Amino acid sequence: MRRSERIVRITQTLLEHPNRVLSLTDMADRLSSAKSSLSEDLAIIREVFEQEGWGQLETQAGAAGGVRYIPDCSRVQAEQFVKEMATVLADPERILPGGYLYMSDILGKPEVLDMAGRMFASAFRKTGAEYVLTVETKGIPLAVSTSRYLQIPAIVVRRDHRVTEGSAVSINYVSGSRRIQTMSLSRRSLPERKKVLLIDDFMKAGGTLKAMTDLMREFHAEVVGVGVFMSTSEPTDKLVGNDYISLTTLDSVNETEREVKVIPGTYFES
Amino acid sequence: MRRSERIVRITQTLLEHPNRVLSLTDMADRLSSAKSSLSEDLAIIREVFEQEGWGQLETQAGAAGGVRYIPDCSRVQAEQFVKEMATVLADPERILPGGYLYMSDILGKPEVLDMAGRMFASAFRKTGAEYVLTVETKGIPLAVSTSRYLQIPAIVVRRDHRVTEGSAVSINYVSGSRRIQTMSLSRRSLPERKKVLLIDDFMKAGGTLKAMTDLMREFHAEVVGVGVFMSTSEPTDKLVGNDYISLTTLDSVNETEREVKVIPGTYFES
Repeated sequence: MRRSERIVRITQTLLEHPNRVLSLTDMADRLSSAKSSLSEDLAIIREVFEQEGWGQLETQAGAAGGVRYIPDCSRVQAEQFVKEMATVLADPERILPGGYLYMSDILGKPEVLDMAGRMFASAFRKTGAEYVLTVETKGIPLAVSTSRYLQIPAIVVRRDHRVTEGSAVSINYVSGSRRIQTMSLSRRSLPERKKVLLIDDFMKAGGTLKAMTDLMREFHAEVVGVGVFMSTSEPTDKLVGNDYISLTTLDSVNETEREVKVIPGTYFES
Repeated sequence: MRRSERIVRITQTLLEHPNRVLSLTDMADRLSSAKSSLSEDLAIIREVFEQEGWGQLETQAGAAGGVRYIPDCSRVQAEQFVKEMATVLADPERILPGGYLYMSDILGKPEVLDMAGRMFASAFRKTGAEYVLTVETKGIPLAVSTSRYLQIPAIVVRRDHRVTEGSAVSINYVSGSRRIQTMSLSRRSLPERKKVLLIDDFMKAGGTLKAMTDLMREFHAEVVGVGVFMSTSEPTDKLVGNDYISLTTLDSVNETEREVKVIPGTYFES
């Protein structure tokens, strides 16, 4: 097999299996090539990935050696994406009665989800997260995309308790609108004592994410990170603490003047 | 730039932008290479993609020429995946009271979602679908993955009507459990007269998917396909007609004997 053909195969395999250790022996066998050629191929791919800010290739040498593609997101790409999002989100047409902002359309676009997933995966890749947790409904696409780049399962907290979920743990909490709400998670969906990353679309005071953290305690899980697509400037102190990552910040919505101000999120503060 | 480095860049660009026409002029500029070299690179990539069953590269020649990667899924890959799924799903531990089958864990695994998304994208790629539509909650990850491979937006029908969705169109329908239920879709999420692909996790009689079809009529949308992760053998006639695609079929669940039988879906009948 020619080098260029091998490179196509290796690049595809790495991109389709982020954050997974792929055996060099298996790869060499599958490509019917010597490990030395494979190493040279990987060196070329590594260089390009790093130049382009797509992420790192981590290789372990030796008989049991492997290679792992850790997706990343360059600061330039992230900044450009957030700037674009800020412009799109600040469209006054998005203002809904009550000062809410319509953004379901954005959270359904594959290119937005891919980029947001890359950014979260990049920000949380050193946390050792084993599961991505979200609450239905609007956070699910973001959680799925993040889980894809981290190559760990996504699980969904329900607002009701469905027969198709089996036995579940439920908790009550007070939502932002001061109503008592319920959330529940199927017992089967999360083993005990796991590291969990919380992802959601929007955070104001942080009541929902706080409730998710409380729910995690019932599973003896450790919350290793909190990521949201959009947080608000006010209140400054969130119920989950201020160690969260937001991609964008909703600074103000003026329903009367029809003005929205969206600025970059806490992602860029670290 | 060496050919091998160009090949890494082109392969990544194609894989990260499925079903989108990428300008050859832009690509040649970005790689600082002649279009003739680029054509040779694409020929190599095309050959590998076709050999491996990853999909086709469609090229249009000329000044305004472009290339489009159309993801596919080989029959062998699809069969192997469905066989694996059938084994995993037939685990009697999955049986829930009432004869339901627990499968939320499976629908949260990135490798399952990737493969299911590829299969749906492959099955429906000639329909001209412009949107993927699902209903909350369990179908969302599948819809997101399918929308990623088709590179079209995913939209979510809600079971309630949320203030963050703006004005919505609601319909009532009778569910499988014979209760009257409501579903609603935000007006902003779907322009009129679009081609829509329906994706869901599970279909028994097809009442929910039938209701989604009815809801689409309110948007003057055309339903160009129906895909589900699992359908049931009984009833044989579904309310959405029998022109749907399922990846797996739940043949029987015997709660007393603790036996589940899952077989390949209608995907393989065409």
